[in-house]
Amino acid sequence: MRYFEDIQVGEAFALGSHTFSAEDIKAFAARFDPQPFHVDEAAAEQSHFGALCASGWHTAVTWMRLMVAYRRRTAEEARSRGEPVARVGPAVGFRDLKWLKPVYVGDTIDYRSEVIETRLSNSRPDVGLMTIRASGVNQNGEPVLSFISTAFVQRRPEQP
Amino acid sequence: MRYFEDIQVGEAFALGSHTFSAEDIKAFAARFDPQPFHVDEAAAEQSHFGALCASGWHTAVTWMRLMVAYRRRTAEEARSRGEPVARVGPAVGFRDLKWLKPVYVGDTIDYRSEVIETRLSNSRPDVGLMTIRASGVNQNGEPVLSFISTAFVQRRPEQP
Repeated sequence: MRYFEDIQVGEAFALGSHTFSAEDIKAFAARFDPQPFHVDEAAAEQSHFGALCASGWHTAVTWMRLMVAYRRRTAEEARSRGEPVARVGPAVGFRDLKWLKPVYVGDTIDYRSEVIETRLSNSRPDVGLMTIRASGVNQNGEPVLSFISTAFVQRRPEQP
Repeated sequence: MRYFEDIQVGEAFALGSHTFSAEDIKAFAARFDPQPFHVDEAAAEQSHFGALCASGWHTAVTWMRLMVAYRRRTAEEARSRGEPVARVGPAVGFRDLKWLKPVYVGDTIDYRSEVIETRLSNSRPDVGLMTIRASGVNQNGEPVLSFISTAFVQRRPEQP
């Protein structure tokens, strides 16, 4: 992650994509969200979803997985160029999470984060607050997931 | 779940508790949130958390797991008494998720859902909307997780 001062409202981070297999969907749901339409094809066909689909929690944590990988990758790239890497504080929550469409077996979800607000912290002079809209879009261009999250990002240290 | 008409604002569902082991914390985080303070004790000691702690996503999906088990259990109990079981629609999202305190190795989190609002649906006469505050509280009585979720609950069928 770059310093807070280098981040512009409107810029987007392309985090990568994930294709949800039946095995993947059922393994997550069996552990955390064992509703019939997430763990059993026949029951899912009888449900209002019409077919096996991923737990919404599964589609959300996959954003997290790709976000952590993205940060690691971009930090390594910056270090390899001899550039500093700004610290990013863990998020303390998020808001307005929406599951907009079901994610079915074989769907490929493309995840991104778009900066929608930046502001200075009232309490901490060393950091700024970056608010992003996280999203996932399927192979047909349909949004399936959206939420808003705010994180602390280190400000550029003052030159002595 | 009982019918919409039987649900009162202020009532709470005790979903049960979960104790987070180091193995449990690291297995979830390795898969979905591999930040150093969730997967490595030594790195966690050097972080601002001071010790290994669970991914916030892990503490949230554990609420979901216990909620699904609670619904299944109470539905079976109702059926065994010969009572009807109202349908509950899947949530389409949630809001204001807050990770209020870290969840460390050995912490036992008690989960509950409290009904904070009920209202009729404008578009569907057969269901009502139940809004709950989901929460998790640790063994010291400190809230660690909170979010707000709204679900459709079947209304009592009219007697012919």
